[in-house]
Amino acid sequence: MTLTFSDPAPLTHDQLEEGTAFAPRFDAHGLVTVVTIEAGSNDVLMLAHMNAEALSLTLETGLAHYWSRSRAKLWKKGETSGELQEVVELRVDCDQDAIVLMVNQTGRGAACHTGRKSCFYRRATVNGGAVTLQDTGLPKLFDPKQVYRG
Amino acid sequence: MTLTFSDPAPLTHDQLEEGTAFAPRFDAHGLVTVVTIEAGSNDVLMLAHMNAEALSLTLETGLAHYWSRSRAKLWKKGETSGELQEVVELRVDCDQDAIVLMVNQTGRGAACHTGRKSCFYRRATVNGGAVTLQDTGLPKLFDPKQVYRG
Repeated sequence: MTLTFSDPAPLTHDQLEEGTAFAPRFDAHGLVTVVTIEAGSNDVLMLAHMNAEALSLTLETGLAHYWSRSRAKLWKKGETSGELQEVVELRVDCDQDAIVLMVNQTGRGAACHTGRKSCFYRRATVNGGAVTLQDTGLPKLFDPKQVYRG
Repeated sequence: MTLTFSDPAPLTHDQLEEGTAFAPRFDAHGLVTVVTIEAGSNDVLMLAHMNAEALSLTLETGLAHYWSRSRAKLWKKGETSGELQEVVELRVDCDQDAIVLMVNQTGRGAACHTGRKSCFYRRATVNGGAVTLQDTGLPKLFDPKQVYRG
């Protein structure tokens, strides 16, 4: 990891929210939440997390890297599937504990491991006191069984 | 709270990801992460969290409710500022631990407590080994000192 970030601890509230210091506030697990959106359409593709190393690699290489909480390892997006994400812009929120990553989704255009463009392919519908999900109709652009073999 | 959600525990992986049961996977603190976007433009407005009560109230009333982690209380968005968020659609991701909330931002159109439309008003720029922030130029639509008095 070659990039350095500012330490948020000594910053005032105003410096954190209105300043030019990039001081990501990693949580107790060393992670920040990342919303990845498609440049141009602004479609939300996925929600994931980065530790300092993933954040540094993302900015250095111009390719999205995350921290996989389920596999507990650094995750270069698309390393297995070929669905690399080219970084267009990285934004941080007011209190610097969340990031929006604007990307060009390469490959077949599928950010989700199910083969769909986006992970958000179901909407909630309220029927009386119950809530059910309805598919929004995003097509599967690849077959996960073929892509994630062995 | 009047709405009931499905329990994710007995669901198979396939039921969780491809089924019609709405089974939000709240974390150890009882929260799911929510990305709130503007209907139409898809602009990311903010990132926040909901507990089961906030999620239920959001779906029942059609107005965004969150759980404020900093204040440790239920938070009806816009209750103080007047910047209510009208729900257009609520989507859940593949493994049901994240939500995208599509809203009409009412009031002055400012989702951020700083008075801006979006909390993501700064982009990161790499200069050699250092990273700094640059304002993207979102105007302040209200003066926080006037809105959040006493």
